[in-house]
Amino acid sequence: MLKKLQNASIKNCTRNELNVVCDELRRVIYETVMQCGGHLASNLGAVESTVALFYVFDFPNDKIVFDVGHQCYAYKLLSGRLDRFSTLRKAGGISGFPKRTESVYDAYDTGHAGTSVSAAIGLAKARDLQGESRNIIAYIGDGSFNNGLVYEALSSLKILNTNILIILNDNGMSISPTVGGMYDILSQIKDSEKRENIRLLESFGLTYLGVKDGNDVDEMVDALTEAKALLKNGSVLLHIATKKGKGYEFSEEHPTNTHGVPPVGSPKEKEYSEVLGESLCDLAQKDGKITVVSAAMKEALGLSEFFEKYPDRAFDVGICEENASVLCASMATGGLKPYYAIYSTFLQRAFDEIIHDVCAQDTAVTFCIDRAGISGSDGETHQGVFDLSYLSLIPNLTIAVPKDTEELKRLMEFSASYPHPLAIRYPRAGKVVFDANDAEIKVGKWEYLHRENQAASAKATVIATGERSLIVAMKALQNLKNKGLGFDVVNARFVKPLDIELLNNLQSEYVVTIEDNVFLGGLGAMIDGALVQSGKPCKVKNFAYRDEFIPQGKVCDLQREYGVNCKDIEAYLSEVLA
Amino acid sequence: MLKKLQNASIKNCTRNELNVVCDELRRVIYETVMQCGGHLASNLGAVESTVALFYVFDFPNDKIVFDVGHQCYAYKLLSGRLDRFSTLRKAGGISGFPKRTESVYDAYDTGHAGTSVSAAIGLAKARDLQGESRNIIAYIGDGSFNNGLVYEALSSLKILNTNILIILNDNGMSISPTVGGMYDILSQIKDSEKRENIRLLESFGLTYLGVKDGNDVDEMVDALTEAKALLKNGSVLLHIATKKGKGYEFSEEHPTNTHGVPPVGSPKEKEYSEVLGESLCDLAQKDGKITVVSAAMKEALGLSEFFEKYPDRAFDVGICEENASVLCASMATGGLKPYYAIYSTFLQRAFDEIIHDVCAQDTAVTFCIDRAGISGSDGETHQGVFDLSYLSLIPNLTIAVPKDTEELKRLMEFSASYPHPLAIRYPRAGKVVFDANDAEIKVGKWEYLHRENQAASAKATVIATGERSLIVAMKALQNLKNKGLGFDVVNARFVKPLDIELLNNLQSEYVVTIEDNVFLGGLGAMIDGALVQSGKPCKVKNFAYRDEFIPQGKVCDLQREYGVNCKDIEAYLSEVLA
Repeated sequence: MLKKLQNASIKNCTRNELNVVCDELRRVIYETVMQCGGHLASNLGAVESTVALFYVFDFPNDKIVFDVGHQCYAYKLLSGRLDRFSTLRKAGGISGFPKRTESVYDAYDTGHAGTSVSAAIGLAKARDLQGESRNIIAYIGDGSFNNGLVYEALSSLKILNTNILIILNDNGMSISPTVGGMYDILSQIKDSEKRENIRLLESFGLTYLGVKDGNDVDEMVDALTEAKALLKNGSVLLHIATKKGKGYEFSEEHPTNTHGVPPVGSPKEKEYSEVLGESLCDLAQKDGKITVVSAAMKEALGLSEFFEKYPDRAFDVGICEENASVLCASMATGGLKPYYAIYSTFLQRAFDEIIHDVCAQDTAVTFCIDRAGISGSDGETHQGVFDLSYLSLIPNLTIAVPKDTEELKRLMEFSASYPHPLAIRYPRAGKVVFDANDAEIKVGKWEYLHRENQAASAKATVIATGERSLIVAMKALQNLKNKGLGFDVVNARFVKPLDIELLNNLQSEYVVTIEDNVFLGGLGAMIDGALVQSGKPCKVKNFAYRDEFIPQGKVCDLQREYGVNCKDIEAYLSEVLA
Repeated sequence: MLKKLQNASIKNCTRNELNVVCDELRRVIYETVMQCGGHLASNLGAVESTVALFYVFDFPNDKIVFDVGHQCYAYKLLSGRLDRFSTLRKAGGISGFPKRTESVYDAYDTGHAGTSVSAAIGLAKARDLQGESRNIIAYIGDGSFNNGLVYEALSSLKILNTNILIILNDNGMSISPTVGGMYDILSQIKDSEKRENIRLLESFGLTYLGVKDGNDVDEMVDALTEAKALLKNGSVLLHIATKKGKGYEFSEEHPTNTHGVPPVGSPKEKEYSEVLGESLCDLAQKDGKITVVSAAMKEALGLSEFFEKYPDRAFDVGICEENASVLCASMATGGLKPYYAIYSTFLQRAFDEIIHDVCAQDTAVTFCIDRAGISGSDGETHQGVFDLSYLSLIPNLTIAVPKDTEELKRLMEFSASYPHPLAIRYPRAGKVVFDANDAEIKVGKWEYLHRENQAASAKATVIATGERSLIVAMKALQNLKNKGLGFDVVNARFVKPLDIELLNNLQSEYVVTIEDNVFLGGLGAMIDGALVQSGKPCKVKNFAYRDEFIPQGKVCDLQREYGVNCKDIEAYLSEVLA
């Protein structure tokens, strides 16, 4: 049935056939995610509503924006991408998120939360001004609906004076269960049929429609047909109650565990998040002032135990990265010791608050930044390759990068008494533990992981930051050792401030920098600046990602393709050392 | 009366004396702002409520957070800063915003919109966890109340389970008149006494109290007394209707013109914003796809005429910088040609959307960034000294910096057909027009403003970006010419991409960079990186702001003090050229 639909319109299906299509979609999604990894539960929950959307609307003339994009698999399968779907999240394959470059059916790229309503309004305004005729739809989950950007968008709907359909897919979960004010309002509407709260939505210029079972295709077709008619006269919010993970028992019962799923057979690695969680629990036991703030990601960040043990000091504020940042700054000015754990890419949302609230006031806030560097199969919108750059330009902020999970533990201990803003960034997986883990941690002090000669610099010094970069450096060292060559290796444990003393004492003719970050504004660029200012005559070679958005793929492949290439580093060093 | 209160408690005043205090405060504020510049209308409107706050609450044990801070003058005058108030906004003087380093009465620093509710919640939670006894108040205007961050904070109030008082000072204006969904809800409550909308606030866990005349001290004292009692059991929103500019006829009638006031006797200069407005009107006449988006700043950005002439294509979405950014990205993907005009410091709020929506999708959005570089008397929170750094790290983004207002006009013409993300940054005042304004504008191509010899590089080349930096460069040139020395001067019209060809062809022994931005991640740092990569043996000296938050003061003084110093540049060049 699904195969047939690649060349035929779903509009000719009977209602019964629509149910068959749903079953097939669910099976393809499940099997593909088991093979490729991906977002399972949210995509399963969106199957029926997506089928109904294709039945009622006319894509790609009509346009739909999926908020975040964790609900777009069925849409992709129904818009000609069944054949290629087995390449999901692989290099060169189908993206796990909407991508305009992938299909004309994808109207707007997403990945971060809360953009869909703004985007739908902008697309609708473009339609109006160009005299086009099409429907514009934002499809958003209840977790994203609490993001401040959605509220800003709703507030501007009347100002832009245009008509959109918002489908609010309410499964009561973002990644963690949804919490907060607007969600409570929506829950009341859904649960008790108290419709007074609808007035709120009406004040934004929205007509409210509700669907009790958003996993029932018939109900969905009827509701969407009604919504489509109403759209001629104004904007509509269609509130549908769905079940995240619908159709697979395991997933329905454990929607958090199945939100993001690794492919079958992945090796089990020690994750930095585990170390973070353990460290925070240890620290909190000794210091009653320690608090932890998360933006709807506590499980993935290793914070579950902390939330259980210290519920009074643990706050999950939903997908509200900015609020979380200001809460930390103000808790710190009020005398507490807050930790804000977050993914690198999502911290971008709090950039202004890091400057304006945390750093301008020089508060003792610690950012624990996970998924830093290339994050892999989620692609462009999720790579954590900008943080060293956008953080290092901010005064008062110290940036630390542990070389391994052991050093993260020690940096966390260091953070406990550190009275200024501190960012600690690390990737997801810890793969090795280096031998050296006893040198005292001092702000802006690096350590030699390897010295050819304790008394003097080698001809070349490699300065690398973070586990992945140091692995590359040590691998290159090992290979060159086999050829009788050697160089010094420095662990740049702090990216800001730089270890200016070490740099000044460097007598190497060649300096190589390696980082899991873009070049512009990163460690290498900062070292270039410092060496230029000091007038040191050494030759510097920077290995970092070039100035492009990095697509999906395996971490190691992408590192190599985008500029952090062990082979090239080895080649460069063996040439200059020969 | 006011003088007496510097050493006595306002609590001993009679109600009548409170009115006398209000009159005196209003006079001091008016006279000071006429001398020093500052935010007049909003501060005048907040006088009575502030007097009542001191009468009812106990500062500094109780803590108050002023959103943005445009309403804190009366608070400063009542908390021991009358004597020093004539130094308002001057170097080393009283800040126009709350500053913890200035007084123990200032509980939390502000400057950007929407942080106060989050900050109050964080301070309240710190109180709770440390077993302290104090009231925590957020004082916020209706303009800020539409910011998404406020909504995120309200959504988290129940999660953090703490009690705060929010005073919503509703004068119907932010800088421009307030517009949008939540404001409409509040207006309905205020205007028609329809109290159904209060349910919304209650769903956030807030008890609603209203004051019809927030400029009546008696009413305010009564309402605050009631609010203080209610605070024991939960959070309260006190909605007060005030008149922006209250008490000075001119200001009441022209609140937009008197929002920010320059000191009496300032020279009238040609502003970049005027050129922006004219250019956009010209372009829009030729191209029906051009739209303009602003976040509550249309007058200050020179957009009034555009909004009048092209109301269908002009959108002021209120203080919602993120939404504005996504609207532009989506309008562009929908086929329009959007321009987003904004102050440099406020654009920080949209950092993630610039990456995720505008640049990752490579949309034809143009950012017109005003108040770039040091902005002067507003101090730390308003300096536009980070934009070159936080923008240059983003792939797909081109950054242009006009050397004068004439070049802004030409860059705007260039932008009309430019199909990629473009940022154009400039300061407020245009002071000079350079002779050269005819070379064709090409992406990443710089121009020589002065060459010692057309055929070959001079011994030193100064690469400067933007009017202020080029003025410094040309002044240094003039001075050295008098001593018989000379150097080449390059207008780095594009900061990204760099003019690599020009850099590669440079034969100068010395290269000097000058910019109105912090060093880290800025033009100088990028040039250092490029020269290091190319292996060029020249000596480079970078003039840019050092890694600190820059306080209030005169632009030229701050430039000198923080690292862009004509005298030092001259000294360096005369040494190396001698």
